[in-house]
Amino acid sequence: MRLLNVDTIDEARGKLLENAAGKIPGVEYIDFSKGRNRVLAEDITAAENVPGFNKSTVDGYAVRAKDTQGVSESIPVFLDVVGEVSMGEAAAKIIFPGQACYVPTGGMLPEGADSVVMIEHTEKFDENSIAVYDSVSVGRNVISAGEDIGMGTVFLRKGTLMRPQDTGVLASAGVSQIPVFKPWKVTVISTGDELAGADGAIKPGQTRDINTHSLSAAAEKNGFVVAEKLVLKDDRDAIKNAISKTMDVSDVVIVSGGSSQGDKDYTADIMDELSDVGVFTHGIAVKPGKPTILAYDGKSGTILAGLPGHPVAALLIFELFIAWLYRQLTCQKEPKKTIARITENVPSAGGKATCMPLELKEGSDGVYDAIPVLGKSGLMTVLTRADGYTLTDTNSEGLKQGEFVEVTLF
Amino acid sequence: MRLLNVDTIDEARGKLLENAAGKIPGVEYIDFSKGRNRVLAEDITAAENVPGFNKSTVDGYAVRAKDTQGVSESIPVFLDVVGEVSMGEAAAKIIFPGQACYVPTGGMLPEGADSVVMIEHTEKFDENSIAVYDSVSVGRNVISAGEDIGMGTVFLRKGTLMRPQDTGVLASAGVSQIPVFKPWKVTVISTGDELAGADGAIKPGQTRDINTHSLSAAAEKNGFVVAEKLVLKDDRDAIKNAISKTMDVSDVVIVSGGSSQGDKDYTADIMDELSDVGVFTHGIAVKPGKPTILAYDGKSGTILAGLPGHPVAALLIFELFIAWLYRQLTCQKEPKKTIARITENVPSAGGKATCMPLELKEGSDGVYDAIPVLGKSGLMTVLTRADGYTLTDTNSEGLKQGEFVEVTLF
Repeated sequence: MRLLNVDTIDEARGKLLENAAGKIPGVEYIDFSKGRNRVLAEDITAAENVPGFNKSTVDGYAVRAKDTQGVSESIPVFLDVVGEVSMGEAAAKIIFPGQACYVPTGGMLPEGADSVVMIEHTEKFDENSIAVYDSVSVGRNVISAGEDIGMGTVFLRKGTLMRPQDTGVLASAGVSQIPVFKPWKVTVISTGDELAGADGAIKPGQTRDINTHSLSAAAEKNGFVVAEKLVLKDDRDAIKNAISKTMDVSDVVIVSGGSSQGDKDYTADIMDELSDVGVFTHGIAVKPGKPTILAYDGKSGTILAGLPGHPVAALLIFELFIAWLYRQLTCQKEPKKTIARITENVPSAGGKATCMPLELKEGSDGVYDAIPVLGKSGLMTVLTRADGYTLTDTNSEGLKQGEFVEVTLF
Repeated sequence: MRLLNVDTIDEARGKLLENAAGKIPGVEYIDFSKGRNRVLAEDITAAENVPGFNKSTVDGYAVRAKDTQGVSESIPVFLDVVGEVSMGEAAAKIIFPGQACYVPTGGMLPEGADSVVMIEHTEKFDENSIAVYDSVSVGRNVISAGEDIGMGTVFLRKGTLMRPQDTGVLASAGVSQIPVFKPWKVTVISTGDELAGADGAIKPGQTRDINTHSLSAAAEKNGFVVAEKLVLKDDRDAIKNAISKTMDVSDVVIVSGGSSQGDKDYTADIMDELSDVGVFTHGIAVKPGKPTILAYDGKSGTILAGLPGHPVAALLIFELFIAWLYRQLTCQKEPKKTIARITENVPSAGGKATCMPLELKEGSDGVYDAIPVLGKSGLMTVLTRADGYTLTDTNSEGLKQGEFVEVTLF
C-alpha cells in the first residue's frame, strides 16, 4: 500500500464520491404513513387533482362574481338561493346569473359559481333569497381543483427526507405506497487492548468502549441500520477476520482505533488487502480526525472507514464523510445550519480545518452567541456540553470575536 | 360551557401549563444504548472517574516534569528507561527522579510520573536510556483521572434529549441503565363528512383525510406513541363516544375539524362535557390556527385538543402547544432556531401572531435568505415547500425586507 498525502476535506470527499459512486442505496416500496425520516427514491407525481374540485375556504354562498360587481355595504344585490351543498357530496345544482347556493367550508362549488361570499357579508332576505353586501372577484374564497397539486405534476422530489407535512401531502394526493431508499447497513468495530464494556467493574488501565455506542447512535440518527457492534483486541488476524466477515452483510464497515501509523495500527493495511479499489485516503487535514482511512471494495460493495479512536473525532468524521456520502448518493439537501456570533477569538490549526464545538446562548438581539467549548482533545464532555460545531477552512486564520459563524447543530 | 375570549399564544400556553401540570410523564429504565431521542428523567451522576487513571494522550515517555526543566533541542537530558506500559494494563513500575517509562496513547501513567514527552522529542541513547529534547510541564500530554468526568458529579442533566454523544458519554462512565420519560400516547381523530382515506377512488366533493397522518407523524417526531388514528363523520354521538373511549388509553386526544363555532362544530361542547377541568381555551390569536380548543381532564389525566381542520394550522398548533408542553414538563430545552434575512415585506395579521412558512437559501454572505412561501391558506404544498417558519408577535407591524428573523426548522 502506498502511503498517501493528507487530503483536505473536499479532496477526501471527492475521492469518496468517485470511488463509491456505485453505492447508491436500493429502493423499496413502503406504506406512506410509515415513511417518517425515510428518503424518497423517486419524484412523486400526482395521479389526481388536489383538491379534486373547486372548494370553498369559508362558510358562505357560491355565486357568479359578476353578479356582485359594484356591490357594497350600502348597495346590496339580491340573489335567489337555489340550494345548499352538503359536505362530502357533489354539488347538484348549476348556478345561473342571479343565483346563489349555500356552501360550507371545504364544500364543493356548484357548476357556474366562480367565487364565494362569506356568510358574514350576506343577510337572509326571505325564504329563497339573500342580500349580498360584498363584491367578490373570480376565485375569491375558493381553492380551484388542482390548485394545491395539479394532476400529473411532481409534488415531492426524489431526495426528500420525509417530514410530517410530507406525509400529509402524500395523504392528500392519495399516494399510499412510496419508493424510498433502503437504509445502509453499518457495522461498527472498536479496537484496542484497553477496551472494556459498559457493564461491570473496570481494571486499572482499562477504558470503557465508547465508539461502538456513539457511532451506532449516529448511524441510527442518519437513518442507517446497525448490522453489528464488535469490540476487538489489537490482534491483526482477529481484526482482519471480523472486517472480512462483516463486509458480506454491511454497506459500511467502520473500524475505530488503529488508524494511525504506529506499531499496532494495522487498519490501513488490512483495509487495503480486503478491498479491490483499496485505500484511497489515509489522513485528512481536519482537527480532530487526521488519522482517517477511507477505502472501497467494489466486489462486495462495501465502504471501509478507519476512524480515529478519539471518540469526538470519530463522531465528527462519521458525520463529515459517511453521513454526507449517503445524503449525496440519495440526492438529499444538506441539513440547514444556524448562524451565531462567536464570543472569543479562536486560533487556526495551521493548514488543517478545525472543528470547534460551540454552546449557543440567545444574545440580547435575538442572534445566538456561540461560546467555544474548550477542553483537552478527547474529552467526551466537550461534545455533550456543545449544541453544535463550526468548521473553519483549511487556510483560515482562525475566528475573530464577534464574527458570524455557521453552526451545524448536533 | 362559557365562551371564552381569544387567548394570545402565551396566555394559552400559560393556561395549558397550569391546568395540565399533573401530566409529567412517568419514568422507565432502559438500556443506555437504546436511548437515542429519549429524554433523561433524572440527572445522571458518575459512579466512577473518567478516565479511571492518568492517561497519556500521545505515544511517548512518562516522566517527572521537573526532570525536563531547562531541556531543549540543544541541551537534552538523559533518563533511564525502566519499562513499558501495555495498553489496558496497570502501570507496574514507579517512576523515580531520573527515570522514564514508555507509554502508548491511551495508556496508564506510572505512579511518580506527572507528564509525557512525545516520542518525536526523544531519542534512544542505549538499551536502557533515552535523550529527551523537550521540556514538559506537569500534566502535559496527560488526561488526569476524573478530568473528563469526576466521580460523584452530574454529567448529564434531566431533560437531555439524547444525542449520539450523550450515548457515548454514558458508555464512557459505565452507566448501562438510564431513567427516561415515558412517551405520551396520542390519539388523533379527524372529523368531517367529506373525508375519504388515502386508498382507492374518491367521489366528487370528497377530500382525503390528511390530519390523522400528518399529526401522527408529528407525534412520532416528538417522541410520542400513536395510540389510535380514527376518521369519523360529523356525528356528535360518534365523536363523543370515540373521545371518551380513547381518553382511557391516551395521554392526549386530538380532534381535528369541528373546532369552530358553526352548526356542526361540536368539539368544544363535547370536550367540556367529558373533562373535569373543562375547556379553558377556545380561540387563539394566531394565524393560521385561531379555532383551537384546549381542555383537560384530571380524572383520566388526558389533555384534549381540538385543532382546526386546516392541515397547516393543525400541524402548527400541535407543535406550538402539545409538543411544547411535553418539552416543558420534561425539562427539555427548546430546539435551536436559525437566523435568516427575510427577502420581502410581510404585512401583519392585525392583532394575531402570524406563522409565515419560509424557504431558506444561502445568501452571498453565508447568511440564509428567507423567502416567504406564499399560497392560499390551507394549501398543503405551502408547508412541503418550506424549510421552516417564523412566528411574528401578536402586536407586530409585520416584517420588513432585510430584517433578521428567527426560523424554526421543520
